[in-house]
Amino acid sequence: MNKVSTKPLSGMRDFLPEELGRRRYVVEVVRRIYEAHGFAPLETPTIEHLGTLLGKYGEEGDQLLYRVLHRRDALKRALALPEVREADLAEQGLRYDLTVPLARVVANYELPRFFKRYQIQPVWRADRPGRGRFREFYQCDVDITGTTSLVAEAEVCSAVASVLVALGFADFEILVNHRELLRAMIRAAGIDAGLEGSSLVAIDKLDKIGADGVRAELAERGISAASADRLMTLVSLAELSRLGAALGADERGRAALDELARLSEILQKTPAAGRIRFSPALARGLGYYTGAIFEIAVPDLAGSLGGGGRYDDLVGMFGKKQVPAVGFSLGLERILVVMEERGMFPALAVGPELLLCWLDVEIGAVLAAAAALRAQGLRVEVYPEAAKLGKQISYADSPGVKAPVAAIFGKGEAEEGVITLKHLASGQQARVAIAAAGATIAGWREG
Amino acid sequence: MNKVSTKPLSGMRDFLPEELGRRRYVVEVVRRIYEAHGFAPLETPTIEHLGTLLGKYGEEGDQLLYRVLHRRDALKRALALPEVREADLAEQGLRYDLTVPLARVVANYELPRFFKRYQIQPVWRADRPGRGRFREFYQCDVDITGTTSLVAEAEVCSAVASVLVALGFADFEILVNHRELLRAMIRAAGIDAGLEGSSLVAIDKLDKIGADGVRAELAERGISAASADRLMTLVSLAELSRLGAALGADERGRAALDELARLSEILQKTPAAGRIRFSPALARGLGYYTGAIFEIAVPDLAGSLGGGGRYDDLVGMFGKKQVPAVGFSLGLERILVVMEERGMFPALAVGPELLLCWLDVEIGAVLAAAAALRAQGLRVEVYPEAAKLGKQISYADSPGVKAPVAAIFGKGEAEEGVITLKHLASGQQARVAIAAAGATIAGWREG
Repeated sequence: MNKVSTKPLSGMRDFLPEELGRRRYVVEVVRRIYEAHGFAPLETPTIEHLGTLLGKYGEEGDQLLYRVLHRRDALKRALALPEVREADLAEQGLRYDLTVPLARVVANYELPRFFKRYQIQPVWRADRPGRGRFREFYQCDVDITGTTSLVAEAEVCSAVASVLVALGFADFEILVNHRELLRAMIRAAGIDAGLEGSSLVAIDKLDKIGADGVRAELAERGISAASADRLMTLVSLAELSRLGAALGADERGRAALDELARLSEILQKTPAAGRIRFSPALARGLGYYTGAIFEIAVPDLAGSLGGGGRYDDLVGMFGKKQVPAVGFSLGLERILVVMEERGMFPALAVGPELLLCWLDVEIGAVLAAAAALRAQGLRVEVYPEAAKLGKQISYADSPGVKAPVAAIFGKGEAEEGVITLKHLASGQQARVAIAAAGATIAGWREG
Repeated sequence: MNKVSTKPLSGMRDFLPEELGRRRYVVEVVRRIYEAHGFAPLETPTIEHLGTLLGKYGEEGDQLLYRVLHRRDALKRALALPEVREADLAEQGLRYDLTVPLARVVANYELPRFFKRYQIQPVWRADRPGRGRFREFYQCDVDITGTTSLVAEAEVCSAVASVLVALGFADFEILVNHRELLRAMIRAAGIDAGLEGSSLVAIDKLDKIGADGVRAELAERGISAASADRLMTLVSLAELSRLGAALGADERGRAALDELARLSEILQKTPAAGRIRFSPALARGLGYYTGAIFEIAVPDLAGSLGGGGRYDDLVGMFGKKQVPAVGFSLGLERILVVMEERGMFPALAVGPELLLCWLDVEIGAVLAAAAALRAQGLRVEVYPEAAKLGKQISYADSPGVKAPVAAIFGKGEAEEGVITLKHLASGQQARVAIAAAGATIAGWREG
C-alpha cells in the first residue's frame, strides 16, 4: 500500500486542544458581542451550487474555488464526452465566503425586513498559503439586510470595534472609503468607464506593490500615464474636504463624500469612536461592493484583521428581489496571529482538571467515584489502567495532560468514602469526603 | 444568465436562527458532559487526502465520499490523458467521519499516552437523503486512544449515557456486541473465513430487511442455507450464557463473551447503569471495528442515535505505530429529530431581547443609548430607519424578530437620560434611567 502522509493538507490545520482553547475563547467573545448588537446566528452548508458562487468574487476568486467532482452517472456522462472540460466535471463547490451564501438565503426565505445575522464558519480558498493565510479559515461575519440607512453601517462597525476592544486590542483603526467615491476618482482621472474594474483591482494592491507597482499595472491595462498620475494623486488625498475640492461637481462623488462625512459623525457616538480613518486608496478586492467599504488595520500586521462594506446589488443577482445590505467580516486567523504574538490571551483551562488515580480498588468503585466528582461540575479523567501510584500522578503532570489536581483513591479512601486531593503546582494536599472535592478544588483555584 | 436555485443543495440545510438555537443547546450539553469526562477538544480539516479516507469504511463508504476536483496544472495534466478516469481527477476528499481523521492525528503527533479527545464537526456523505439523514451532518465523538483497558469502553459509554440523560432522554438503551463474538458465530455457523466480511454486512441489515432478507443476502453471497440458519439462530441468542453454550470451546469467542460480561458489570457503576443490552445481531457497518461495538436505540427511531466501538488496528493502518482505541459517536441530527418530535427543548432565547425604537432624536444619541444598554449585557437591536413608533413597536413583535421588549427613546427620554421599556407579552411598561434598564428587564424575565 502506498503510504499516505499523516500531516494535514497544505494550507489546512489540525487543531489540538490547547490551540483550540484559544480559538474558542476568541469565538465566544465574538459571539457574545455580536449577539449584544442584536445579530442572530445563521449557518449555511459547506457545499453550494457553483452557479451560486461563480461570478461574485471576480475572476481571481472564481479560480480559487474548490470544486466537488461529479459522482456516479453524472461523472460517467462527463467522461464519455469527446473532449472533457473542467465545467463538465463539477457543478458544486465549497463556500468561498459567508456573504454570498447569506445573499442566497435572503433571496430564498421570508425573513424579517431587517435581517441581522451573524455567521462564524470556515471558508475555503485554494490560495497560496502564507503567514496567517490558510486554505481553510474562519470568518466571523455580521450583516444587516433590508435597509440603505447608515445606521446599518454604524452598527456593523460598532459590533466589530466592540469585539476588538473586548479582546484587548488598543491600537486598531477602521479604514473607510466608498466605492462611488473611487468611481468618481477614476472618472476625474479621465479613465474610461470600461476600465473601472481593472483600475480598482490595481489600486487595491497599493499596500502590497507600492505606487510604482500600481502605475505599472495601470499602464499594462492600457491606462495613460497622465490618467494614472491623476488617479494616484486623488487616492492620496486623505482629507474629505481636499478630495471634495479635487472632484468638483461630480454629483455621485459628492454624495459619497457626504455619506462618509455623515457616517464618520454618527460613529463618534459608538464604540468605534476615534477608530475611523478615511482612506481614499482603500478599494477591497471583492466585486460586489457598491457603497461604503471598510478594513481593519493594526500596526504589526500586513493585511487586515477584517473588512466589509455595502453591497446593495448582490441579493438581486439571485433574481428574486432587490435587497440592500451591508456587512463586516472579521478574520479569526488574523486575530489569533496578532493575539498570540502579543501574548493577549488570559489563562485558559482546557482538558481535565483532575486525574483520578487509583490502587487496590475495584474499577466499578473508581468509576462511581468519577461519576460523583463529575456531578460536582469537575472535569475528571480516570487513569485507565492498573499502575503504580507514582506513575499515575506523574502522568497527571505530563505534557498535553497537565491536570492541575491528582486525586488518589486507594483502599483506605474507598472504605471511608473519601478521596485524597493533591494540587500538583503547590503540593497542597487534602483528604476530603468525595462530595466535598469540588468545593476544595474551587478553593485552590481561587487561592 | 442561467438562474440558479436559491435553495440549499439536496441533503444540505440552511440553519436559520431559531433552529440554530436548538442545535447550539444540544451541542453545549454534549460539550459540557464530554469535558466533565476529561475529554479535550480536537478539530481536523474538512478536506483530507483521499489516501487517508479510502479503504477505511468499506466499499460502500468509499463510493459515498465527496471528492475535490484537481485544479490548474494537475487538472490540465489529467484532462490531457488519453482516457480520463475518476482516480486521475481528484486526490482530496471531504471528511466522511471523525474517527479516521483522529487516527491520522494520533499517528502524526506526539500526544499524551491516553489521548482523550472529543470532536464535534460536520461530515459529508453522498448518500440518499431521508428522515434525519443528510449529506452534511454533525457527529459528536469521544474517543480514548492508547489503552486496551475496558475502562476506556466504560468511559465512552458513560459519557454518551450522561449526555442523553442530561438532554432528558429516559428510554434509551445502549446495545452492545463484540466483533470477535460475531466472528466466532460466523465460524460456528460453518461459514468460510473469506465470507466473514460479507456475512457481517448482511447481518448489519437485519433491522432494515428482516430475517428473510438477511437469509436471501447470505444465499446471494454463496452461503449455504444450513449455515445461514445456524447463524440466524446464534444471533438471536440474547443471553451471554446461552450463546456461550452454543459456541462451545471457541477460545476467541469465549474471551469476547467474558469481556462483554465484565464490561456489563463495570458499567453498572456508571451513568450507563441499567441501559446496557446485549444484542448479538448488532454488527455495525464500518470496517474498522475490532472489539466491543455499541449502538444507541430509542423506541421511536428506526436507526440509532449513535454508535461506536473498539478499533485497535486503525491507527496502525497509517503505518507509523500501533495504537489501540475505542470511541463513541452521537449523531446530532438524530438527537434533534427525536427531541423536536417529543418537545424536549426548554425555552431558548435567540435573537435580540430588546428593540430600540426612536423618534425625533439624533441617531448618534440613539446609538449611544444602544451602547449603554449593551454594556449592561442586553442583546439590543436598533430600528435602523426613521419610522412611526407604532410601526417600530409592531416590528419588534413580528415573526422572526420576536424581541420580548420594545424600548422607546423619544425626545423626552433623550433629554432626561431615561428610556421607556415595554414588555410586549404582558404590556407592562416602565420609564427608567438607561443605566437601570438591564435590571428592570431581568426582573421581567424572572417574573
